[in-house]
Amino acid sequence: MLSNAYAVILAGGKGERFWPLSTSKRPKQLLSLVGGTPLLGLAMERVDTLIPRENVFVITNADLVAPTREIISGLPEENIIGEPFGRDTAAAAALGCVLVRARDPNGVFCILTADHIIKDIDVFRRTLGDSLALAAAENVLVTMGITPTFPSTGFGYIEAGEPLAGADATAFFKAKRFVEKPDRETAEQYLRSGRFFWNSGMFVWSVKSFAAAIAAHAPPLQAMMDTLGRLPDARGVVGALDAEYGKLEKISIDYALMEKASNIVMAQGTFNWDDVGSWSALENHFEAGPDGNITVGAVEPIEATGNIVVSDARLTALIGVHDLVVVQAEGATLICPKGKAQDVKKIVERLRERGTYEELL
Amino acid sequence: MLSNAYAVILAGGKGERFWPLSTSKRPKQLLSLVGGTPLLGLAMERVDTLIPRENVFVITNADLVAPTREIISGLPEENIIGEPFGRDTAAAAALGCVLVRARDPNGVFCILTADHIIKDIDVFRRTLGDSLALAAAENVLVTMGITPTFPSTGFGYIEAGEPLAGADATAFFKAKRFVEKPDRETAEQYLRSGRFFWNSGMFVWSVKSFAAAIAAHAPPLQAMMDTLGRLPDARGVVGALDAEYGKLEKISIDYALMEKASNIVMAQGTFNWDDVGSWSALENHFEAGPDGNITVGAVEPIEATGNIVVSDARLTALIGVHDLVVVQAEGATLICPKGKAQDVKKIVERLRERGTYEELL
Repeated sequence: MLSNAYAVILAGGKGERFWPLSTSKRPKQLLSLVGGTPLLGLAMERVDTLIPRENVFVITNADLVAPTREIISGLPEENIIGEPFGRDTAAAAALGCVLVRARDPNGVFCILTADHIIKDIDVFRRTLGDSLALAAAENVLVTMGITPTFPSTGFGYIEAGEPLAGADATAFFKAKRFVEKPDRETAEQYLRSGRFFWNSGMFVWSVKSFAAAIAAHAPPLQAMMDTLGRLPDARGVVGALDAEYGKLEKISIDYALMEKASNIVMAQGTFNWDDVGSWSALENHFEAGPDGNITVGAVEPIEATGNIVVSDARLTALIGVHDLVVVQAEGATLICPKGKAQDVKKIVERLRERGTYEELL
Repeated sequence: MLSNAYAVILAGGKGERFWPLSTSKRPKQLLSLVGGTPLLGLAMERVDTLIPRENVFVITNADLVAPTREIISGLPEENIIGEPFGRDTAAAAALGCVLVRARDPNGVFCILTADHIIKDIDVFRRTLGDSLALAAAENVLVTMGITPTFPSTGFGYIEAGEPLAGADATAFFKAKRFVEKPDRETAEQYLRSGRFFWNSGMFVWSVKSFAAAIAAHAPPLQAMMDTLGRLPDARGVVGALDAEYGKLEKISIDYALMEKASNIVMAQGTFNWDDVGSWSALENHFEAGPDGNITVGAVEPIEATGNIVVSDARLTALIGVHDLVVVQAEGATLICPKGKAQDVKKIVERLRERGTYEELL
């Protein structure tokens, strides 16, 4: 355990990609997509050997504080922070820094995601531990890059530069540049090159390094951190968020800091990582049955192959259909080809625009 | 109204083809597949101007007597007869004859189906009325043949012979032969020939003509009719069915009588008729939306075309799927291509064999 290490887990989300199982009241990180534990619970467990629970903050939507509290145990009440509305990851990271700084101005902390799946937990923990040690020792901003295993067009990439000298088990590199989701051809070049890594959205830095970078590159965020830093406690910070967030633009950490700062270091993550971006990603995390169907719950396939079926408390009978995603939630059922799973948002948008079925969104 | 005319409506069924909406406890004729009235209710209404309700018998499964009674009104309690088990249409018709004969040995009656859809009701009523008049006047067995409108491979056919002389609005022909469901090529020949008509499963005859034909061609059924005919009332008849049906083979009217008797007459039905054999048949009875989707209930299609979706009390969201049948019933959902709609039975069989989900069958 590292007593001056903290974790800030970003656990917001609109619950669109895993609709109809996920909803705004029950977004992805609160779902048990694999195994019995919700993704947020798994994210908590992953840092358990490194960071004491009282040093873990969870930042979520204000209306998700209660369901989040139900899922995770051992966390002081004030460590679950509800944002009144989202201002993307830069604002949430700055808020996290304020919370950590109030406990330890010399602390180091990581920004972690709540809704990704990581296997090889030991490798993850080693990478995180080495990154925390590096961030405590040097004025660097560490970002975790994942060794790609296929030419994904669904992730952003980090191009690695010179390796850093050092004896850690984890390899560190100067980060050369961040790139957006590539097209297929580019993704294949990236994979072949060996120099490009998936941008996992996980970061490690000290309070001081982060605050210095914010001061240099994101003055509005610094102003917010100054204001919030003068408040007496976490409750006061939460109370001021409405006003402070209201002054901010939406901007991600990547845009606000990582693409601007020069002291970015990439930790190479060799663990199995997936952001589980859509229903079709379940293929990577379940063993398919004899006909290539992945089924959760009560499913009867006849001459049906390659389908992903999540059947919550109802029977789903398939005859002669192939490569579909079928998801049955309490009030709604989704049916689409696996290749269109990312279009689920379109349904959510349409229902939201129309103002119908609000209870399902 | 024809006071000596009776109707026997065959309303049994296992509820397999329209699973999961239909079940053994709620087979097709009890469903409101089109409009608000269950198919059996529509079948009752069709004879209303011709035959008094007290002259209408409904023969169904013993365990469907109660739900059947809930659906139809104005029928004396003893007119709904529950068979302890099915012995196909010949036994049911013979039972019907016993019931009619007890009321009027000189009566005429029709055998009608409970789960077909007939449009052009006026034309149907004229055909039925003319057929009842013919059956009252002559020793003939009338079968209704429907003028085909497409080369169906899903129906049996009747080949018409010489036309009968007469001044009725309805055309009558000697029936030359009955043929099973043809292949596509044969069906196209039938359609071109103008001499082949769909076998609707509806029949008209007098008590005397039917009894004579049974005596000549189906001795076991005559024995049953004799035994049942000696019982004092309908309650007595129902009580004896278990024993009497137990002695019979399963056989249809077509095999037991129509293919053997020489006095068969075909009434030409020019009304729109469909036996609604599977979910895909709904295409013939609903107007499709702009993308060719037929939807009943709450359905949201996005880039989805040509689907048939019945969404009972839940929302069904479709993205980019085509030509599927999707049916959401209370406890189960069915998904299959329209071309496989007749395979629904396979699911029912599998669940029945396995002994699971009995509440859904």
